[in-house]
Amino acid sequence: VPQHGPATQVGSGVDAPRLLDPLFVAEPMRQVFSDRARLQAMLDVEAALARAEATVGVIPADAAPSIIAKCRAELFDARALAETSVLAGNPAIPMVQALTTLVGADDPAAMRYVHWGATSQDIMDSGLVLQLRAAVDLFDKDLSRLSAVLADLAERHKTTLLAGRTWMQHALPTTFGIKAAGWLSAAERHRHRLAEIRPRLLTLQFGGAVGTLAPLDADGLSVAATLADYLMLALPDIPWHSHRDRVAELATTLGLLVGTLGKIARDISLLMQSEVGEAFEPTAKGRGGSSAMPHKRNPVRSAIILSAALRVPALVSIMLGAMVEENERGLGSWHAEWETLPDICRLAAGALQQTVDMLAGLDVDTARMRRNLEVTNGMVFSAVVAMAMAPHLGARAAHELVEQAVRRAICEHRHLAAVLADEPAVQAHLSQSDLADLFDPARAIGQAAALVDRVLAVRLAT
Amino acid sequence: VPQHGPATQVGSGVDAPRLLDPLFVAEPMRQVFSDRARLQAMLDVEAALARAEATVGVIPADAAPSIIAKCRAELFDARALAETSVLAGNPAIPMVQALTTLVGADDPAAMRYVHWGATSQDIMDSGLVLQLRAAVDLFDKDLSRLSAVLADLAERHKTTLLAGRTWMQHALPTTFGIKAAGWLSAAERHRHRLAEIRPRLLTLQFGGAVGTLAPLDADGLSVAATLADYLMLALPDIPWHSHRDRVAELATTLGLLVGTLGKIARDISLLMQSEVGEAFEPTAKGRGGSSAMPHKRNPVRSAIILSAALRVPALVSIMLGAMVEENERGLGSWHAEWETLPDICRLAAGALQQTVDMLAGLDVDTARMRRNLEVTNGMVFSAVVAMAMAPHLGARAAHELVEQAVRRAICEHRHLAAVLADEPAVQAHLSQSDLADLFDPARAIGQAAALVDRVLAVRLAT
Amino acid sequence: VPQHGPATQVGSGVDAPRLLDPLFVAEPMRQVFSDRARLQAMLDVEAALARAEATVGVIPADAAPSIIAKCRAELFDARALAETSVLAGNPAIPMVQALTTLVGADDPAAMRYVHWGATSQDIMDSGLVLQLRAAVDLFDKDLSRLSAVLADLAERHKTTLLAGRTWMQHALPTTFGIKAAGWLSAAERHRHRLAEIRPRLLTLQFGGAVGTLAPLDADGLSVAATLADYLMLALPDIPWHSHRDRVAELATTLGLLVGTLGKIARDISLLMQSEVGEAFEPTAKGRGGSSAMPHKRNPVRSAIILSAALRVPALVSIMLGAMVEENERGLGSWHAEWETLPDICRLAAGALQQTVDMLAGLDVDTARMRRNLEVTNGMVFSAVVAMAMAPHLGARAAHELVEQAVRRAICEHRHLAAVLADEPAVQAHLSQSDLADLFDPARAIGQAAALVDRVLAVRLAT
Amino acid sequence: VPQHGPATQVGSGVDAPRLLDPLFVAEPMRQVFSDRARLQAMLDVEAALARAEATVGVIPADAAPSIIAKCRAELFDARALAETSVLAGNPAIPMVQALTTLVGADDPAAMRYVHWGATSQDIMDSGLVLQLRAAVDLFDKDLSRLSAVLADLAERHKTTLLAGRTWMQHALPTTFGIKAAGWLSAAERHRHRLAEIRPRLLTLQFGGAVGTLAPLDADGLSVAATLADYLMLALPDIPWHSHRDRVAELATTLGLLVGTLGKIARDISLLMQSEVGEAFEPTAKGRGGSSAMPHKRNPVRSAIILSAALRVPALVSIMLGAMVEENERGLGSWHAEWETLPDICRLAAGALQQTVDMLAGLDVDTARMRRNLEVTNGMVFSAVVAMAMAPHLGARAAHELVEQAVRRAICEHRHLAAVLADEPAVQAHLSQSDLADLFDPARAIGQAAALVDRVLAVRLAT
Repeated sequence: VPQHGPATQVGSGVDAPRLLDPLFVAEPMRQVFSDRARLQAMLDVEAALARAEATVGVIPADAAPSIIAKCRAELFDARALAETSVLAGNPAIPMVQALTTLVGADDPAAMRYVHWGATSQDIMDSGLVLQLRAAVDLFDKDLSRLSAVLADLAERHKTTLLAGRTWMQHALPTTFGIKAAGWLSAAERHRHRLAEIRPRLLTLQFGGAVGTLAPLDADGLSVAATLADYLMLALPDIPWHSHRDRVAELATTLGLLVGTLGKIARDISLLMQSEVGEAFEPTAKGRGGSSAMPHKRNPVRSAIILSAALRVPALVSIMLGAMVEENERGLGSWHAEWETLPDICRLAAGALQQTVDMLAGLDVDTARMRRNLEVTNGMVFSAVVAMAMAPHLGARAAHELVEQAVRRAICEHRHLAAVLADEPAVQAHLSQSDLADLFDPARAIGQAAALVDRVLAVRLAT
Repeated sequence: VPQHGPATQVGSGVDAPRLLDPLFVAEPMRQVFSDRARLQAMLDVEAALARAEATVGVIPADAAPSIIAKCRAELFDARALAETSVLAGNPAIPMVQALTTLVGADDPAAMRYVHWGATSQDIMDSGLVLQLRAAVDLFDKDLSRLSAVLADLAERHKTTLLAGRTWMQHALPTTFGIKAAGWLSAAERHRHRLAEIRPRLLTLQFGGAVGTLAPLDADGLSVAATLADYLMLALPDIPWHSHRDRVAELATTLGLLVGTLGKIARDISLLMQSEVGEAFEPTAKGRGGSSAMPHKRNPVRSAIILSAALRVPALVSIMLGAMVEENERGLGSWHAEWETLPDICRLAAGALQQTVDMLAGLDVDTARMRRNLEVTNGMVFSAVVAMAMAPHLGARAAHELVEQAVRRAICEHRHLAAVLADEPAVQAHLSQSDLADLFDPARAIGQAAALVDRVLAVRLAT
Repeated sequence: VPQHGPATQVGSGVDAPRLLDPLFVAEPMRQVFSDRARLQAMLDVEAALARAEATVGVIPADAAPSIIAKCRAELFDARALAETSVLAGNPAIPMVQALTTLVGADDPAAMRYVHWGATSQDIMDSGLVLQLRAAVDLFDKDLSRLSAVLADLAERHKTTLLAGRTWMQHALPTTFGIKAAGWLSAAERHRHRLAEIRPRLLTLQFGGAVGTLAPLDADGLSVAATLADYLMLALPDIPWHSHRDRVAELATTLGLLVGTLGKIARDISLLMQSEVGEAFEPTAKGRGGSSAMPHKRNPVRSAIILSAALRVPALVSIMLGAMVEENERGLGSWHAEWETLPDICRLAAGALQQTVDMLAGLDVDTARMRRNLEVTNGMVFSAVVAMAMAPHLGARAAHELVEQAVRRAICEHRHLAAVLADEPAVQAHLSQSDLADLFDPARAIGQAAALVDRVLAVRLAT
Repeated sequence: VPQHGPATQVGSGVDAPRLLDPLFVAEPMRQVFSDRARLQAMLDVEAALARAEATVGVIPADAAPSIIAKCRAELFDARALAETSVLAGNPAIPMVQALTTLVGADDPAAMRYVHWGATSQDIMDSGLVLQLRAAVDLFDKDLSRLSAVLADLAERHKTTLLAGRTWMQHALPTTFGIKAAGWLSAAERHRHRLAEIRPRLLTLQFGGAVGTLAPLDADGLSVAATLADYLMLALPDIPWHSHRDRVAELATTLGLLVGTLGKIARDISLLMQSEVGEAFEPTAKGRGGSSAMPHKRNPVRSAIILSAALRVPALVSIMLGAMVEENERGLGSWHAEWETLPDICRLAAGALQQTVDMLAGLDVDTARMRRNLEVTNGMVFSAVVAMAMAPHLGARAAHELVEQAVRRAICEHRHLAAVLADEPAVQAHLSQSDLADLFDPARAIGQAAALVDRVLAVRLAT
């Protein structure tokens, strides 16, 4: 029986991209889920099945090479398969028919052993898992790149001061390093999640028509185990065709990832606003331009990432809703997955690639960050002052004192420090130099550096 | 200025279908949303803009024909536009650049008036509306067919008895005509809804970069009005580029439609179960077969419809979520619509076509319907008996009497009528023939025929 | 038969609010969907049913007053009903049992005519419609207030200049009036939508167990028509219990509304940022404070509105998904609506009230708006200059000229006007005063005032 | 510093249930998320914070007991807190104010150390995590019960034959044991998932206003570590307040669980149909009755579970969408979680409890299962025959032979075995007894028993 390496085939699809594909989808992921790759993944399962059944002795040893030889997507007419899929309700049935014809042309005896003992869903689900393995590998790689880029940002900007903003308002100073470390910490959790779901996800589906392995009788489990081995997939305790949590879990895991990417993009796009100007997507000739406004440098990458963050949660809900399968194979629920899970992978990969590229070339204006800390006339330090006065007045009274000073500062268009300096209650407890120190952002960032170090310390290898 | 008929171009796209397209998408709708059609729709807007601006006198009269001549999708390299879209963040910008080059090759003077005073979103949104007009026309046509098919079923089966089922249990007899009339009544409401949203949806978007019509100064409104006229679209009170309720409303309207289609498909698939066998999707050579089980006639159409019913609600939620646009143009939210709204149209059209075809060829086994009324040994009439006894015993006591008889009938495996005949309380008020009448399904269907007639009477013309 | 006014009862519920209710829910809407109001609405249907059946002669004339007398929510133990609902699967069954007992205590003869010929869903759905009528009335009222507030803002700020922002970047000048007019135009469309759905929504559900009106035989339609009349609801062509588009359409309509409210809140919160400071939510003692930062004035109203805009789209998708009912009554799908539709109404009403209050007291800093137009050193006028140069150089060359000037202005930290003034190509076509005019925002806002007037002209009466 | 056991307090809430709560929500989970429990959880965090800060020496040792003594929910007026939450934008701020007042009444000196160095979100998020720990414990317990019940069903029905159904059509025989084992295998995966997310989820949130631990300066990390220790939560590498993947992951994990529960309920409700009658929800006096139909035994538990399966996926999408937080605290996104995550827990717990109870008392009619295998006149064995003929004729020819026999059997209303017995191609290869054996369901179930054993073997301890 000849060697057969399914993984090498997956991803070699050559279908042309659609108009919007380059915008939303990372090219390698697009290829993993091309029609060609989908077909090849199913054929890889058919090939490995023939090989496994020959090994176990369920089909004649010389039937397998004849079958395997035809399991190449380029031998099939995808357009014709598409048309006949409508009648069959899935693309595997016409593909098996076409494969049988191809095999029969060269080896009429082998023809009868094509798809032996399998049902369409075995082929489609196990083929899907091969595609998902390639997808997960790509996500791992890009998450590793993301982690490296973020670690670099966190390290470099460990002491870069900027305004911490809550409710879209200046709150207290923080550092850009802690911002990056927060993103990094989340990215690391996503890497852990992907690692945890691999054994549940990368699992063979093989059970015959209703999941009993009936057609192969006593040899069913041997064939299944050998098939799993050849495809380098885990053998599950029981076929999972109508239990979709394994594949739905990839959807939810990517949903969580895209949420984090959306958060990063939101942060960058807020920093990039005309009035803020603290960080910018990398520029390139022609990137982010406008057909009407020559000056525009639009945050195109953020827009693409945020569009994924708007779309993927709903697509995840489809995968969860489609788990309610009827009996041994559902009606419509399985169909609902066929475009949805690939779309989730494609959008997540597109968003991830955009995020990595955006952060790798991020243009950080540290001077502007520092300068913007002043736009509130010192109010961004109000919590620091309140905290410093609290041991003297109690937390509540200190809070109220500063609150009043803030109101006066706004009315009188003065700096908060100046207003406070006039305040007898402040004078009673703080020297002028004490007060000045409270308005030093470098002193107001607490454990920012230590927290960055904590995140960097526990990072997975990239 | 030459005549230009945008509507004739829309839908003439020739991009090849993907593997799963024939399964999920009606072919005419697929073409409305092909890349080619999207491109042509945008070009139709550019052409009509040049013509309108020449009419108003904003650009030289002889620039328009030169521009219009190049507004043909087949002159553009979609693949190249796809690649440059990534930089620009949308496909309109590179399309305008390519159009400018094309126009300049033949008429350098006209070249400068390409896209005059417009912004990308004007072109993309108005182009989208042209596509949506074609889509709504197709929906109208297919809804009209659905209505006709359902009216025929309702009329033909006005007195066809079958078990009414609630909570997936036999409840009381009903008719297949009332089932069809219920579907029909809903279908009619969807026709009304589509008619109501047309004026809000089929509306020009034209406002320049931020929606003020700034670039055209005092001529802005004249150009807009003329452009709307040429495109046969309504002129809105104000540009709506960052107010997406107009397009989101098509999504919600189709979401409601798909809900009804899903309900029909669920009903048919329940009736088609092996143990029920009351109605069947039309068969065709090769349709609904299984790769493992030669006897299978799977409800493929129901599955496709139900898969749409699982997917579309979530896609609608994306459109609603994407309404939260930032200022004069959102970040990511507009992008989130680009594939989602077409997908909703495609899936809805696919489900609608499958529903019409399924119902047009529906195989109704009226004998089996009648026979299945007996599977509960008379219990499907329990409410009739209880109602008949209620004037004598009161509603609650009558209910309890029949409830006890039901329990006895189950225990003793007897027909409910036989058990009740033994009951003194029944004997006291009902003769044997009275009791027999109560178990006559034809008497137990209330106003079924009248209700069917009511629905048929108010149906829109098809 | 005594008069009975259901509408007066609905909304009089007195259940206590939960901890987060005041934050997210408008109080009048909370009361419409209180347990008490739900109960009363169902009892209103039972009362009207007794009255209608007495009128038609289906039940004795003197049974009706005895039944009606007990149809008061305060006579029922909601806690006990809650417990027994679990067994019955809905709250109507134990309510009918309790009502029967109450009636029987005073008038044993009338007791038997309670709930005569109805099924639980008739009572629950028609009761729900009574609640929804109260809800729609509240929405109408608040939308009318919103419209008035927005019209005032649009009128007052017709010429208030500020930066138009696309992709969260300065684009071209616009006016705050056109911003408000855009919101207003959308609000008006929502008013139209609500008006359009009223006749479909405010419709009686009455069909008996499976929708045939079986239990009432020939009197079924008369009872239904009289009942509809007494409840002031439309009589539908056919019972709609398993066709949920009527109620789902309220969900989608409110989904569209909440999208617009979210857009308004996003706009306000962006304007309210520390670095922008152009518009502010109204302040009040204690509003928007922070437990840590005395200076904080958080945009609490925007946050609440935006949280609704995040939640409602998904809740709408539940309503659409729940339309796939099985046969004559679904399994779980109807249940899925019971809390979802009220939640949509509650969140939408909360968001609407917050929006009205936020806008009514909106603090607009017109000076800051004007000042912020300068933050880009003139680049916000780049499209104006490009448009002015286009007749001389062609659109593309003009665009490129300005693009280069922008790059130089950024590098050299100069104002764009200054850079352009040095440009020979500019000098060739524009005088210095021409150039200065191009940088006058008041000249760069196109038809802003005319567009505002158009919106104000077509507004519905409030 | 006195001992303080937060876990013992959580879940002791006494708020009254709403009308529909008993239907949809498991009572213990309702209490975990009652207003009272939410308040107590926040107070537990305040108490532990005071204790931790006293331990580290940040506040005076004798302030802690005074604060801890007032951290009891029953001392607070929830209604008043609700009202003031509207102004503050969250319930923690008024709670801290009330707590401060309470402490000050007894110990004016301690009053100033209430909430020392914390921000509202620290208290709300860490309080939430305490509630979620109680929730996860309940899920673990009920999943363990589910696993035990399913293992029992799988073991007992290892050889119980019934029709395997795909696309809602009879496919091939299977066993009820393998059905239960499939459910069990999924349930076990959910147990693994819950175990995996615990360390990420049950993590302290403590960071001060922007997450830098600024207010506590150098003591920040010591306080955090001590606080985590006292609350028995993990100390994260960095505060996670604006990174919501930790809590969103509980939502997705429960989303997957509910999908499986929905699948089980769908299966049971299909088996319980009037025409199928193979398995029944346990009956109880009054359970599943109808107000109109005395015979009804509605699958109420399935309905409740299925309603959760319709709702939870959309709620999960809210949690994912809400991950897009702005900067150091989002606007509306955090608010969107407050009711959504508890609702997910409540609905999931309700569905889980219903599933356990439904399966624990499941009434399985094995005789009817066996009998229903005959409803297709032998066609359920078509795949078996085709497989048996395949070695002789080839898979495709065998498939076609049986397909033709099936068509004849349907037309002639004969048993498939009889039709095949007349077929020369069959006669040539199979004896009459061979053929009879192929129609023996006990031989047609492949490795069903072995697969059940595999699942039982790897089950986690319960």
